[in-house]
Amino acid sequence: MRKKIANIGATGYTGSELVRILSGHPEVEITMITSESHAGKLLSDVHPFFKGRIDFTLVSSKELRPEGLDLVFLALPHGVSMDFVKKYHDAPFRIIDLSGDFRLSHESVYETWYQKKHHHPEGFRDAVFGSPELFPEEIRKSRLIANPGCYPTSAILALAPLLSSGLIDTAPIIVDSKSGVTGAGVKPSATTHFSNVHDNFKAYGLKNHRHTIEIEEIADQIARAKTKVQFTPHLLPVDRGILTTVYARPVSAISEKQLQDHYTGFYQKAPFVQLTDTPPSIKEVRATNFCHLYVTYDPRTDLIVVVSVIDNLVKGAAGQAVQNMNLLFGWDETTGLTQMPIHP
Amino acid sequence: MRKKIANIGATGYTGSELVRILSGHPEVEITMITSESHAGKLLSDVHPFFKGRIDFTLVSSKELRPEGLDLVFLALPHGVSMDFVKKYHDAPFRIIDLSGDFRLSHESVYETWYQKKHHHPEGFRDAVFGSPELFPEEIRKSRLIANPGCYPTSAILALAPLLSSGLIDTAPIIVDSKSGVTGAGVKPSATTHFSNVHDNFKAYGLKNHRHTIEIEEIADQIARAKTKVQFTPHLLPVDRGILTTVYARPVSAISEKQLQDHYTGFYQKAPFVQLTDTPPSIKEVRATNFCHLYVTYDPRTDLIVVVSVIDNLVKGAAGQAVQNMNLLFGWDETTGLTQMPIHP
Amino acid sequence: MRKKIANIGATGYTGSELVRILSGHPEVEITMITSESHAGKLLSDVHPFFKGRIDFTLVSSKELRPEGLDLVFLALPHGVSMDFVKKYHDAPFRIIDLSGDFRLSHESVYETWYQKKHHHPEGFRDAVFGSPELFPEEIRKSRLIANPGCYPTSAILALAPLLSSGLIDTAPIIVDSKSGVTGAGVKPSATTHFSNVHDNFKAYGLKNHRHTIEIEEIADQIARAKTKVQFTPHLLPVDRGILTTVYARPVSAISEKQLQDHYTGFYQKAPFVQLTDTPPSIKEVRATNFCHLYVTYDPRTDLIVVVSVIDNLVKGAAGQAVQNMNLLFGWDETTGLTQMPIHP
Amino acid sequence: MRKKIANIGATGYTGSELVRILSGHPEVEITMITSESHAGKLLSDVHPFFKGRIDFTLVSSKELRPEGLDLVFLALPHGVSMDFVKKYHDAPFRIIDLSGDFRLSHESVYETWYQKKHHHPEGFRDAVFGSPELFPEEIRKSRLIANPGCYPTSAILALAPLLSSGLIDTAPIIVDSKSGVTGAGVKPSATTHFSNVHDNFKAYGLKNHRHTIEIEEIADQIARAKTKVQFTPHLLPVDRGILTTVYARPVSAISEKQLQDHYTGFYQKAPFVQLTDTPPSIKEVRATNFCHLYVTYDPRTDLIVVVSVIDNLVKGAAGQAVQNMNLLFGWDETTGLTQMPIHP
Repeated sequence: MRKKIANIGATGYTGSELVRILSGHPEVEITMITSESHAGKLLSDVHPFFKGRIDFTLVSSKELRPEGLDLVFLALPHGVSMDFVKKYHDAPFRIIDLSGDFRLSHESVYETWYQKKHHHPEGFRDAVFGSPELFPEEIRKSRLIANPGCYPTSAILALAPLLSSGLIDTAPIIVDSKSGVTGAGVKPSATTHFSNVHDNFKAYGLKNHRHTIEIEEIADQIARAKTKVQFTPHLLPVDRGILTTVYARPVSAISEKQLQDHYTGFYQKAPFVQLTDTPPSIKEVRATNFCHLYVTYDPRTDLIVVVSVIDNLVKGAAGQAVQNMNLLFGWDETTGLTQMPIHP
Repeated sequence: MRKKIANIGATGYTGSELVRILSGHPEVEITMITSESHAGKLLSDVHPFFKGRIDFTLVSSKELRPEGLDLVFLALPHGVSMDFVKKYHDAPFRIIDLSGDFRLSHESVYETWYQKKHHHPEGFRDAVFGSPELFPEEIRKSRLIANPGCYPTSAILALAPLLSSGLIDTAPIIVDSKSGVTGAGVKPSATTHFSNVHDNFKAYGLKNHRHTIEIEEIADQIARAKTKVQFTPHLLPVDRGILTTVYARPVSAISEKQLQDHYTGFYQKAPFVQLTDTPPSIKEVRATNFCHLYVTYDPRTDLIVVVSVIDNLVKGAAGQAVQNMNLLFGWDETTGLTQMPIHP
Repeated sequence: MRKKIANIGATGYTGSELVRILSGHPEVEITMITSESHAGKLLSDVHPFFKGRIDFTLVSSKELRPEGLDLVFLALPHGVSMDFVKKYHDAPFRIIDLSGDFRLSHESVYETWYQKKHHHPEGFRDAVFGSPELFPEEIRKSRLIANPGCYPTSAILALAPLLSSGLIDTAPIIVDSKSGVTGAGVKPSATTHFSNVHDNFKAYGLKNHRHTIEIEEIADQIARAKTKVQFTPHLLPVDRGILTTVYARPVSAISEKQLQDHYTGFYQKAPFVQLTDTPPSIKEVRATNFCHLYVTYDPRTDLIVVVSVIDNLVKGAAGQAVQNMNLLFGWDETTGLTQMPIHP
Repeated sequence: MRKKIANIGATGYTGSELVRILSGHPEVEITMITSESHAGKLLSDVHPFFKGRIDFTLVSSKELRPEGLDLVFLALPHGVSMDFVKKYHDAPFRIIDLSGDFRLSHESVYETWYQKKHHHPEGFRDAVFGSPELFPEEIRKSRLIANPGCYPTSAILALAPLLSSGLIDTAPIIVDSKSGVTGAGVKPSATTHFSNVHDNFKAYGLKNHRHTIEIEEIADQIARAKTKVQFTPHLLPVDRGILTTVYARPVSAISEKQLQDHYTGFYQKAPFVQLTDTPPSIKEVRATNFCHLYVTYDPRTDLIVVVSVIDNLVKGAAGQAVQNMNLLFGWDETTGLTQMPIHP
């Protein structure tokens, strides 16, 4: 029998991407899709590209009945997710939360970086950081999965093999990331206004972007040491995709060949992480759950440079959430996630 | 047992799109993928986005062995397809040709519009114009299917309900089309150079584009009357998609409601044609086999205006070819073509 | 002595483009730039690209003092301009209004197409339609110039030589236009949201766009006959530029050569209208006041097809307004408008 | 009397940009524009955007007569420039070479990084690196100016205030750059094919891009110490613009305020370098000769992060070349370079 799931929040890019992926997943049945602002409308009224292919009448999340539900995906803004998780603290279903509400270590860290009071501090103790490549065992046993942020996914997959084996100086690590606009959400604003983005490129959020601490805390955990991450996000004039360029200094002599072999070994069992021979492009992973990694060492400068690419809405959000669900329910990690890339 | 197919030509956008779609089709097995220029290489060397998902060693089409083959897709340039079709004139397999070599009525028409000698005039007698919505019975019985051009697909689906019932003046009919750049092929040229296309838009091929006669001949056939089509193509700074705006004058009084009901009836059994309530956009059909139609009548000017959108590589090429294959083999028309759209 | 001008409204694209052009005009002095929403700020706070090159403290339009002012440019929304014009009905300065408030023939027409009550019907009697190529004498004598809309500029320049000599059937005339996004204004909305526009294309406003009646009324005037214009606007994923494709049927036999000679003669004294040998692209007129026209006749269908391109913010708005000012004050028409195009 | 100049090479983006800028320069007269591949054609045949605004019959550079010429701009590929410079070694005119042929310190360095034999080693002794902000005195006296590369311009302007005062560790310095496609030239190739660039982003040339050594050698010179520069270029889906993000570690305690004051002082007399309060975007300097710098220090990581933006064809090529000419001839540095930005 198919697992019964509910999608909470369907208006945003993450919510609609979840519906896209889940509607092709052979083991689940979507039982409800909620939207507070569009309750009563059809999903295809809000997202016309679903017209004729899938449809649902959107309902308020207040209509959720926990009985019989196996899993709930939360595609809500941060600050809203926490209240849902608190309310259903004792419910029988599991939760995969795609917001930033439970990714950090502690409410005090959250409140510093999000500048917002946290309503459900207990959640930090329950939650597992949902990186299937790094914490598969913890994810399988968890009730509450904090699905990683898009930038942190791209950074951590690039850094984990270095950090886990103590190969690099951990302070500072430089993470220079470039993201497509869907990362800024579906809501019109000056930031997402066509003529402000098109034929343009800018840096933003230097020193204080919330993903800085998310990357750093997970890096600490993998390295079992204190790291210092300098994270600079930039805004690309594209819909989807993150390319992250990581710079780190090796602690001892290493060759590029050794480095690449180390990565190959580290990700041997990770079906969605691939090493590439040439610097990757975001379009080659668009609409897929893959992360492509290009690993290099420059003897001239004694620096390691790693380039990673993901689709921020798939591996950086909805796809990774489905991968986490697959782990939770003991299915093959790739179930429902094997669609071919769209190119070009 | 799965039908055995061969893909002849894999370098271009149409060829790789065929592989993308066919690799998810439950009833077929790709037995060979050919490329003259890249024989011996891996498919993923030529198209890195396939890396880790599907792979094939490309071979020359000379290695094709007809025995046991059920169907061959030709994704070759026009002028090259004709020789393949001629060579395998008596072979047991069926052919779906995605080039323009057999879409017209006669070699004399071909030679006028293509400015090229035709080597296999008999093919025009064998070939069926592969529009599944218009000629399903002919397609089912055919050995050689001339898969429609991208612009003609968008124009004909917009016009067929008008033409088949004699609702409009047939001279002139105005077809103003706008296409993404993949229609110009994978080969670098000034036309496809980034800075010549990006942030730009132009008309081209006025009065003499080859798709003019393709549209007009099929229009004649549907209307059972001589039509005159004024076709103007334009180049959009996007990867995929064609939007066609059609203008025609009704021969007698008609209301918008009557017109829309007529279209609804005409396409009742066409799973990939949908009427929309608002003017459609190319992104809403991207990477799908759908054609969205917006049908309107303006009493102020006494004109019918129809807007159609398709993905030029799917409904305008590879997807329609697969739809034709489904008809040929008696499968459900939508088999292997139900992937969700990628949005945004 | 330089003429003293005031720019009313500086927030939008038209307002900032006026400042850009006027700041390089040798005969004028900008005495004030107003903004109700940003009064007190620097112009460069609102438009950072002016930083270090030109600056002004924005003030409320209430601070305008008519004495000594020679000319006022109104870059206000329609519905707001009319009140300004009414208020300064007797002021000594001249007005060039870039909104749609005084372009039509009569308040009744305005109220039908704009769905809004008009507060200053007398303005329609005062105003001259500011097309320098068509009404130069009227413009020179006028106190109130209604600067043409962007789409109408592109359509009328393509049609005027045909209409003025009675060369075409006037019902219907088909005007298929494609515009960059700046035409939709600076305000963020779903329409201008990056991911709704980028890699996308759509038709909109079929049958009821306000520029339909603007084109038609001017066409009537030039043709001295009733015309019927079918106008379909489309939204391009570019910042600037309009390409309009016009279809019309000749009333009597005409050759392409005759047609092109007619256009050449008609625009002999128009410094900003150029005929081209190949279909033009919007990028070739970007950031200039030029209109490029490609004129063709198709004997196969007996239709005239004309393609025009302009920059919607320059020839379609601020540049044409400055050209009108040049006429008003008896300067060379090209003064301040000779900047080179930016390419690419 | 105006200085007489010749433009050698007009086909590429740099060559046409030079013509655009020089045609508005009040102190010079272009006496010839050359093109080997298009000799005999009009400039506007090759670049239609010049049609009706400026025109020249292109000639072969063999027709150059040194007498009476004051200055020659070389917009030739590297490897070709060197032969021109050699040939006119004793000619009376000065040369500003926009290629990479004379930017490095020595032919041995050139041959290592360019993988090409140098034909005119003496040129390295004559040439001055044409950075007007750093070497104005040397430029004024020079006969041969090696105009800086686009990436090096963006990197060096960001780094110079740090290097010249010994404020940072010089090994390694991280330079993460992102460039528009015009940097790859006008020639169609897979790299510049629309669908390979549009909606895409990639890194390239890691560890071995030729601008690495150009940045590093100039950094050495400014720092009077050996530096190690890790330079990673990336390709943006935009026409123009480079954004460079620089990461460096201070050698002793410094506050952000001190740092910004230091930059302000350093560039006090540099009319084209501006400090910004928010991270800059490439569009705000498009089609201008400005460099905007955003300077920040992160006490959490003890790193300095500087973001610079330029237009690669203007400040990164043709504009800087004109600025160098202004220095050479003792004109105000901004002459002919004060055009307003085009926005958006």
